[in-house]
Amino acid sequence: MSRGALVSLEGGEGAGKSSALASLRERIEARGLGVIATREPGGTPLGEALRALVLDKAQRGLCAESELLLMFASRAQLVREIVEPALAAGTWVVTDRFTDASYAYQGAGRGQPAARIAELERWAANGLVPDLTLLLDVPVALGLARAHGRGEVDRFEQEQASFFERVRSAYRERAAVEPRRIRVIDASRDIEAVRADVVAAIDAFVDLRAGGS
Amino acid sequence: MSRGALVSLEGGEGAGKSSALASLRERIEARGLGVIATREPGGTPLGEALRALVLDKAQRGLCAESELLLMFASRAQLVREIVEPALAAGTWVVTDRFTDASYAYQGAGRGQPAARIAELERWAANGLVPDLTLLLDVPVALGLARAHGRGEVDRFEQEQASFFERVRSAYRERAAVEPRRIRVIDASRDIEAVRADVVAAIDAFVDLRAGGS
Repeated sequence: MSRGALVSLEGGEGAGKSSALASLRERIEARGLGVIATREPGGTPLGEALRALVLDKAQRGLCAESELLLMFASRAQLVREIVEPALAAGTWVVTDRFTDASYAYQGAGRGQPAARIAELERWAANGLVPDLTLLLDVPVALGLARAHGRGEVDRFEQEQASFFERVRSAYRERAAVEPRRIRVIDASRDIEAVRADVVAAIDAFVDLRAGGS
Repeated sequence: MSRGALVSLEGGEGAGKSSALASLRERIEARGLGVIATREPGGTPLGEALRALVLDKAQRGLCAESELLLMFASRAQLVREIVEPALAAGTWVVTDRFTDASYAYQGAGRGQPAARIAELERWAANGLVPDLTLLLDVPVALGLARAHGRGEVDRFEQEQASFFERVRSAYRERAAVEPRRIRVIDASRDIEAVRADVVAAIDAFVDLRAGGS
């Protein structure tokens, strides 16, 4: 049996990751592949408890170092408990965020050094890098307007626009450095146009894997 | 105003840290010094939430990497929110456990590499090392009998005796390497004998600091 693939969705607030994740999962299933969906932080009982903590506005004074450590505590558990066993069993895994988000949010957003994040990626995330990453890119003002339109905002969503500009730039820079792994999708368009691009991207990737195996 | 001092209490299950902490705090106050008491993991709203998580027996599958990251997430927040401001204001801080516990429990106990812990100590704990550490040393069987006599056991307390033997050895080795900072107190004796040693150790340390300033 061939190993499953890890596909991550990335993007800022209001990029439409939730509906894209559903499209992604449906399309992988439609291609006859076993797939599970997860999210970060979260995806395990530990991760979901940590997610509630880091999104809680009551944790206003949470220091950048703790935030980074909590993201990797959630990731370390997710990788060992869910992702690696699934991939080994031939199941595909789609995840709403993975380590690219730490470089964007805790790195560019909060100022944590990239070398520090890379070191945690090596031992806490077992060096696991997604096989494919879809970056839903949306201008900050539009994304925030969408997120705020959904109602109550979390601890991240109440950050200043400059924070989200740093996050967006970091994501785009990572995509420029790794264009084969990270595909940028223009998420400023309507949901159907984004869905079509998500489906096209995963179809191309599934075809590539099928051809290569 | 002179800087406060950080005094940590370390030791395995059933070593009597709680009553020793009270004695320590009372004695420092009796010497006319401002003092606050805290604990690890814990001591902040974030830390107390993380403490509940890591002690919860429902987190049976918690991986060693996540456990280490959670301990340092709690510590990073405690150092920045509580300990460093207190020390800078001339207040002494006594804490039930600090980074020595990570070397003993997550290092020797769970097999996390010492170099990994040292790296986290450097950036997550800001390189902060206690000025004085009192190690309450007790044979494992006696300590566990005391802990189990208290009733319900937590996730750590249900470990095997071999785990606690590794923890105890690691603590004793650290004390052998840093005898000036880490004072070993025989905690197999009755509570009054231990209290007398704790008071003598903190008195000597306060005298030393007063003489040196």
